[in-house]
Amino acid sequence: MSRETDDLADVADIEEDLEDLALEDDYALNPEFVSDVADALDRGDAERLRELLSALHPADVADLMGFLSADAREELVPHLDPETLAEILSELDSEIREEVLEHVPSATLAKAIGEMESDDAADVVDDLEADKRAEVMAAMPETERAAIETSLAYEDETAGRLMQREVVAAPQFWTVGQAIDHFRRDAGDLPELFFDIYVVDPAYKPVGAVPVSLLLRSGRQVPLAQIMEPVNEIAVDLDQEEVAYIFDKYHLISAPVVDSAGRLVGQITVDDIVGVVQEEGEEDILALAGVSDAGRDASVMGIVRSRLPWLLINTLTAALAASVIGAFEGEIQKLAILAALMPVVASLGGNAGTQTLAVAVRALASRELSAFNAVRTVSREMVVGLMNGAALALLTGGAIYLMFHDLRLTLAFGLALMINLFVAAAAGAVIPLALDRMGRDPAVSSSVFVTFVTDFTGFFAFLGLAAIILL
Amino acid sequence: MSRETDDLADVADIEEDLEDLALEDDYALNPEFVSDVADALDRGDAERLRELLSALHPADVADLMGFLSADAREELVPHLDPETLAEILSELDSEIREEVLEHVPSATLAKAIGEMESDDAADVVDDLEADKRAEVMAAMPETERAAIETSLAYEDETAGRLMQREVVAAPQFWTVGQAIDHFRRDAGDLPELFFDIYVVDPAYKPVGAVPVSLLLRSGRQVPLAQIMEPVNEIAVDLDQEEVAYIFDKYHLISAPVVDSAGRLVGQITVDDIVGVVQEEGEEDILALAGVSDAGRDASVMGIVRSRLPWLLINTLTAALAASVIGAFEGEIQKLAILAALMPVVASLGGNAGTQTLAVAVRALASRELSAFNAVRTVSREMVVGLMNGAALALLTGGAIYLMFHDLRLTLAFGLALMINLFVAAAAGAVIPLALDRMGRDPAVSSSVFVTFVTDFTGFFAFLGLAAIILL
Repeated sequence: MSRETDDLADVADIEEDLEDLALEDDYALNPEFVSDVADALDRGDAERLRELLSALHPADVADLMGFLSADAREELVPHLDPETLAEILSELDSEIREEVLEHVPSATLAKAIGEMESDDAADVVDDLEADKRAEVMAAMPETERAAIETSLAYEDETAGRLMQREVVAAPQFWTVGQAIDHFRRDAGDLPELFFDIYVVDPAYKPVGAVPVSLLLRSGRQVPLAQIMEPVNEIAVDLDQEEVAYIFDKYHLISAPVVDSAGRLVGQITVDDIVGVVQEEGEEDILALAGVSDAGRDASVMGIVRSRLPWLLINTLTAALAASVIGAFEGEIQKLAILAALMPVVASLGGNAGTQTLAVAVRALASRELSAFNAVRTVSREMVVGLMNGAALALLTGGAIYLMFHDLRLTLAFGLALMINLFVAAAAGAVIPLALDRMGRDPAVSSSVFVTFVTDFTGFFAFLGLAAIILL
Repeated sequence: MSRETDDLADVADIEEDLEDLALEDDYALNPEFVSDVADALDRGDAERLRELLSALHPADVADLMGFLSADAREELVPHLDPETLAEILSELDSEIREEVLEHVPSATLAKAIGEMESDDAADVVDDLEADKRAEVMAAMPETERAAIETSLAYEDETAGRLMQREVVAAPQFWTVGQAIDHFRRDAGDLPELFFDIYVVDPAYKPVGAVPVSLLLRSGRQVPLAQIMEPVNEIAVDLDQEEVAYIFDKYHLISAPVVDSAGRLVGQITVDDIVGVVQEEGEEDILALAGVSDAGRDASVMGIVRSRLPWLLINTLTAALAASVIGAFEGEIQKLAILAALMPVVASLGGNAGTQTLAVAVRALASRELSAFNAVRTVSREMVVGLMNGAALALLTGGAIYLMFHDLRLTLAFGLALMINLFVAAAAGAVIPLALDRMGRDPAVSSSVFVTFVTDFTGFFAFLGLAAIILL
């Protein structure tokens, strides 16, 4: 601070204070700071707004926009310069991004997109409405446009869309010194950040990689071919979930992406993988609950649309399970306590089935469950189901006997509970395995099957046994 | 291949073939390959075993061990040299690791641990039984022992345990050239891989970071202070989930870890974060289902112990909800169809509540839901609940009317459904928010509360309305 004047030091202090105010200890945005921004927007106080926004990292500005109302966001957009806009766009939730993009003039957008890495640029262009997309693409230089079109030709959620086209490659016969001199001379052509230099053969196929830190500590005369390490090549059409699995398993920092002929076409870096792993985990949580996230800024109708289909499917299965009860109406009329106990049998089966299901879905996702140990896993689950069923039958059976002093009722309840927990364990393990074998995502739709099986079995076993033993 | 003899080329071909055989297209282990290994172990064929294992990356050997029986693993361990062992140990599932560690002689283990990075080494030592730990620590050189003891002093799942102590630091006044010369001269002291050079002040506090790729493309005479970038310092006692959040949000590759005085004590790199994000996502999936993963090699008793407590809690809440039904025994006896319809009301409420819960838990984890938008989010959920309830009431009400031609029954059912879906939405949003506010993990135990509320409300609303309207 010695070279700054006192005035500048004061400004710096204020900025430091604002930064401290903006984020809470856990790096979440401070609600008061969000209110300050909303107030400044209401008052149209551009000066204060500029001050507040300058305290934030672009990722935090994106986060902030998620907390503002749609109107406030629309007012905020003109206050962002193209460079900041470029950084924010790739951080925004997709439904908010679509809305923001509508309010940015095409020329500004073309400029902002030009500042982005190729993967982020393609994502943004993909979100544009057809008309606007044509305008923006027309306003971009030929080479950038071509690069984005190439990216968009790859399917969503594949390596091709995840990769950046900017890579650092060197021929096999170069030495460390030649590589370093080359990079220093042509620094402008290099990606902003890179972690590995890919060594390629004359056909531009990657044959190895040299981590930048290794390059730095090796002698200038050492040939790259001597220090290069083997690479895990990623096929350009590989699903992003598979890509994440490979990165996680082999602790990769970056990996070369190759086309069908094996030629280097781009690279994926691990910082993009963190986002993918996060996303895939979230998708599984939501899929198991039968919901697709409509996002924090979704409209009520958007949310209803995202949830109603699952509820309708569940209505059908619930009705089917209820029809079992209908078949035992006579028994229930004779002994109404059956109606109070049957949901307990069904509900505990549902809980046990959900437990097994969650474990199986997790194990399948991490490749810990495969054809090799499927039989062993399912049998073990079934033994666990029997034991849990026996334990619960003893406990709850005891309670029921104490309350009703009816040994036959106790017996029917306990047996039904054991049967349902056994069936729950089998269904919770077999259903996701079967879906996986059929090439479907086991997290999606497993739970409706499992719950149906445990409801149906719970009602049928308890009422059926009661009819036989009691009446 | 030009410099190899034909024999060597053949060996290389065989190895290439084995590698292809070992892994399936999705990088999961091939079940046949696992069987081959199991057979070689049964036959005691050390030669074949060596050949098979050499085709695998250490991460795949660790994966393989997860598929083998405990006996087979015990036989496999002596075939691994200390170097391979070191690489495998940090990849193993923790319950398998504990078991493997028992079968490795202390001296071998001390040597293997010496080859590891400090974070992995501490994890392994932490898994050792007290006796064995003392033996292994005694067999290690003084400095390594001290390093591990320091790591273990940090709490589990904090930045201190996640970080590696090996960092590359440079004083503020160095130039790019000085740094490069220094690294090349003292290459042996550097970590094997590094991505950022931390620039430190005389008190060893980080003031900035220079990515290695930036160092490489800058002129030799440029001062580090001129090209360094601001750093996100991580406090050594920060929870690993928070650390992962910061890495994900700011797309970090590495970050300096500082002690309470702000001094640089280590670094965390993004490749370790991928594992943390994976782990936290898996924990949420399991927590929502009320189960802690006992691991693919857990014993039946281990699994029972991990699941029974949750089932017992659910037994209590299910019994409480069932007691509502008991209170309406008279009504059910008069009209047994009520018994068949009431689980449908409860079950749809449960599904709707679970949907809202999953969305809320996800939003809380990604900090998209906070005090600032809590009221807005909960109100929106309640409106959605009402609308979904109305839609389902119309549809199922229609079906019920067609089946039973009873307008009053239809009315009771439809109204109960609307009430339950409204309550489900409120509970699904408010319960995780409340748990989070109390500083508890919203994924843990939310679902038992939500299901209880929807079961209770479903039974009470339907039977209560039926009693009023119908009887």
